[in-house]
Amino acid sequence: MSYCKKCGQTTQESIPDGDHLPRAVCSSCGYIHYENPKLIVGCIPEWKNKILLCKRAIEPRFGLWTLPAGFMENHETTAAGAARETLEESNANVRDLEAFTLYDIPHISQVYLMFRAKLTAPEYSVSPESSEVQLFDEENIPWDEIAFAAIKQTLRQYFEDRAKGKFSFHVGTIEAPARK
Amino acid sequence: MSYCKKCGQTTQESIPDGDHLPRAVCSSCGYIHYENPKLIVGCIPEWKNKILLCKRAIEPRFGLWTLPAGFMENHETTAAGAARETLEESNANVRDLEAFTLYDIPHISQVYLMFRAKLTAPEYSVSPESSEVQLFDEENIPWDEIAFAAIKQTLRQYFEDRAKGKFSFHVGTIEAPARK
Repeated sequence: MSYCKKCGQTTQESIPDGDHLPRAVCSSCGYIHYENPKLIVGCIPEWKNKILLCKRAIEPRFGLWTLPAGFMENHETTAAGAARETLEESNANVRDLEAFTLYDIPHISQVYLMFRAKLTAPEYSVSPESSEVQLFDEENIPWDEIAFAAIKQTLRQYFEDRAKGKFSFHVGTIEAPARK
Repeated sequence: MSYCKKCGQTTQESIPDGDHLPRAVCSSCGYIHYENPKLIVGCIPEWKNKILLCKRAIEPRFGLWTLPAGFMENHETTAAGAARETLEESNANVRDLEAFTLYDIPHISQVYLMFRAKLTAPEYSVSPESSEVQLFDEENIPWDEIAFAAIKQTLRQYFEDRAKGKFSFHVGTIEAPARK
């Protein structure tokens, strides 16, 4: 059971005229509720040959490492959102953001957009969202403790491009994990 | 006044613990309603030296020309959404999609992601959303009758890159039009 945000009455799943997918339509006022994928924006913060990772102090994936990233907010740009998330999670400021990877995750209706970025200084610290914040060399990346598949793939692509000496923009899809 | 989708009671604007922005929070069950930017995905369908435009048969911007594009749906990839919109608006099939432009439009909380794509055949037709569908040479693009700023900018970038003989991925921002 779900309710109309406009009038509080119950909604029913139906396909509106001219549409092709079922939506929650209000049984009383007819308002149509659309749900669409969410954008997650974040950074690969670079300092010299190292990159900044955060150990998650919150669920999901508490205790695992990630690049700073989070849901894009209304009324900001993707790059501003990526910089904001970096500041919130690691108290680090970044500049020179360059779009690097876009990963579709259709089974959870998310799209990740990750930017390469430069730390403005080697200054960062823990936050309510991160129990540890640390610069890593490629050899020390905790590959078995990365929180999210899209982040792991972004890191792999990053070091692959870096080894080639040329960064490109990459689009890919993260499939649902196989059920055990 | 807005209502809770979970229980139908009224919501109030407040900043949840650990958050930094006001959200619609249910006064009864406490459910937090997040609203995030929407992704619009679409194509620049190419056939030889021409590209396909659609004349809008629906609001907004009824009667103006656009590239086929629309809101990304849950459980699809950005490229699948772009191909679906192309099929819906112009009855044209596309292949070989390559991400080309990403435009943030923060004042309306939208992000456009446009792909270059090849028509599988020079076959297309009008649809409930498009009163005309037509292949255009660069010289014949109806620049003064393009429906959306992000689409016009995508077209400009397309012809600029094509003149250089090299297509790159571009990120930009569309600012709110100046008030008259």
